[in-house]
Amino acid sequence: MSDLKSKFLEVYSVLKSELLNDPDFEFTDEARQWVERMLDYNVPGGKLNRGISVIDSYSLLKEGKELTSEEIFQTSSLGWCIEWLQAYFLVLDDIMDGSHTRRGQPCWFRLPKVGMIAANDGILLRNHIPRILKNHFRGKPYYVDLLELFNEVEFQTASGQMIDLITTLVGEKDLSKYSLPIHRRIVQYKTAYYSFYLPVACALLMAGESLDNHVNVKNILIEMGIYFQVQDDYLDCFADPEVLGKIGTDIQDFKCSWLVVKALEHCNEEQKKLLYENYGKDDPACVAKVKALYNDLKLEDVYLEYEKTTYEKLINSIESQPSKAVQAVLKSFLAKIYKRQK
Amino acid sequence: MSDLKSKFLEVYSVLKSELLNDPDFEFTDEARQWVERMLDYNVPGGKLNRGISVIDSYSLLKEGKELTSEEIFQTSSLGWCIEWLQAYFLVLDDIMDGSHTRRGQPCWFRLPKVGMIAANDGILLRNHIPRILKNHFRGKPYYVDLLELFNEVEFQTASGQMIDLITTLVGEKDLSKYSLPIHRRIVQYKTAYYSFYLPVACALLMAGESLDNHVNVKNILIEMGIYFQVQDDYLDCFADPEVLGKIGTDIQDFKCSWLVVKALEHCNEEQKKLLYENYGKDDPACVAKVKALYNDLKLEDVYLEYEKTTYEKLINSIESQPSKAVQAVLKSFLAKIYKRQK
Repeated sequence: MSDLKSKFLEVYSVLKSELLNDPDFEFTDEARQWVERMLDYNVPGGKLNRGISVIDSYSLLKEGKELTSEEIFQTSSLGWCIEWLQAYFLVLDDIMDGSHTRRGQPCWFRLPKVGMIAANDGILLRNHIPRILKNHFRGKPYYVDLLELFNEVEFQTASGQMIDLITTLVGEKDLSKYSLPIHRRIVQYKTAYYSFYLPVACALLMAGESLDNHVNVKNILIEMGIYFQVQDDYLDCFADPEVLGKIGTDIQDFKCSWLVVKALEHCNEEQKKLLYENYGKDDPACVAKVKALYNDLKLEDVYLEYEKTTYEKLINSIESQPSKAVQAVLKSFLAKIYKRQK
Repeated sequence: MSDLKSKFLEVYSVLKSELLNDPDFEFTDEARQWVERMLDYNVPGGKLNRGISVIDSYSLLKEGKELTSEEIFQTSSLGWCIEWLQAYFLVLDDIMDGSHTRRGQPCWFRLPKVGMIAANDGILLRNHIPRILKNHFRGKPYYVDLLELFNEVEFQTASGQMIDLITTLVGEKDLSKYSLPIHRRIVQYKTAYYSFYLPVACALLMAGESLDNHVNVKNILIEMGIYFQVQDDYLDCFADPEVLGKIGTDIQDFKCSWLVVKALEHCNEEQKKLLYENYGKDDPACVAKVKALYNDLKLEDVYLEYEKTTYEKLINSIESQPSKAVQAVLKSFLAKIYKRQK
């Protein structure tokens, strides 16, 4: 494990222990054990990219000056707030989607002793964020900005989840409702804000910047987030499951994926009929027909072309940023995702 | 309808319309309609006591001076934030409890088109609170205090819900885990903070007070909230369902009710056996046996004695408050609940 990652994980233990001894709540022993188990099961088990990118971004904003141990602790704490936010969304999304596994283990709500208590655990995860912010940032000049930032991003993510859920309801009746603008909107709100904008915004606030002066940075990160999700949609169908670490089910699940949107754009009437008849069915023969259509429509090429032009546009936007340090932050994000295979 | 209530409801329309046109989210038509329907279904349909009590309390703190229309709008907005908070908890609690009806209509998640999307709707309700606070209180000197207050109370309520859920899991295996201290803790966190402390705390902040100077007020309101929930538990079993407006099911639902805790305290070995065998069973014969036991143990008298001494203690604590205006606020809350029949 990298040194940075192990330091990051140490901060998790500190934050967890503070939450388990929160003076605003008299825990019973059972409750304390429950929360600890719930945190360990749901918070630290992911790739931690979002969280660690707060430390990375802040380092780059500091132009390579070594961070003090206080700065490492604080950037890590903000990184963990993002991981907590993600855990909260995943616990509740899994309930809503009726999912079975997450990060290679059963979804939290699938554990026999947990069940629907998971919904309240999701809420607890969410409530831990302002506790962490209060414990470690209360005196800072950017404390209110942090509270508002997390509120805003949570609101946008929940709103994105709403249009995703509603769109799928409508799309199941009429596939033609799936379109590029609606795909873009879902992805922008549901994924891009919290995964791309939020880590950088945290780092900017800690570096003493006002977010109002960085609207362009926000827009670039949102574009990158959309690109990231298009990749996700592409990989769900075209990646080697061995490399990806899971088997994609977007076709079966009737997802408003970038691929189905592009297929609708490029297909003729006959192919459209095939898509309508086979999309969203949990039957391997139907899935195979949809995949064959994607191949007929050369969606891999369409994707590669999209990736190329998106990358060029992003590089251009990044290089028009006045601050070299900010450019470095944005390029570091882009480098992490460009041509990723998983 | 009282003049105050109709003014309060007018503010709901304003707040709703602001949320439906929130600049931080590009709504689709379907999404806007969904949120409007969801809000109308879940937010304004209750008794609105918690919300309206913010206006009442603020009036009393102003010692009868007529409120400006701005003050009415602002106290009402804070009142609605509490109603939004309540709606959020109820939508999610109903999912967790598998409830069927709420406020005389099917629970939101029971509507065929809604289902598990209700979990995300609950989250949206929660996210509307900081939107409302930002829209109307951002410039105020007590803005951060408001954000922290709502965060703190939400955290306490979710924590109370957690120990309630865990206690019921444990209690189903071993009824003797139910005790007065655990009942008190559940009720304090799950109900008292948001129903009693929060409205007054909102009014105090608007009146320019620091909450740190009113720890006694908080403690008195928490005691009142606990008394309120004990009444609830009593009425669930002993009230006339015609007057109460619903049929209680605490016995069938294995609730950690004040009555079962008192029964455990007062019963002999034989009666304890009867309780263990019949509590928490969805069978009218079992329920009748538990009720007969409650009568044998004269729990009505135990309750009346509890109500008398609690009332006296509360009045004493209230009258030891230095501020007459604060005394008036507290007495007004107590008057609304003392000897209530529903």
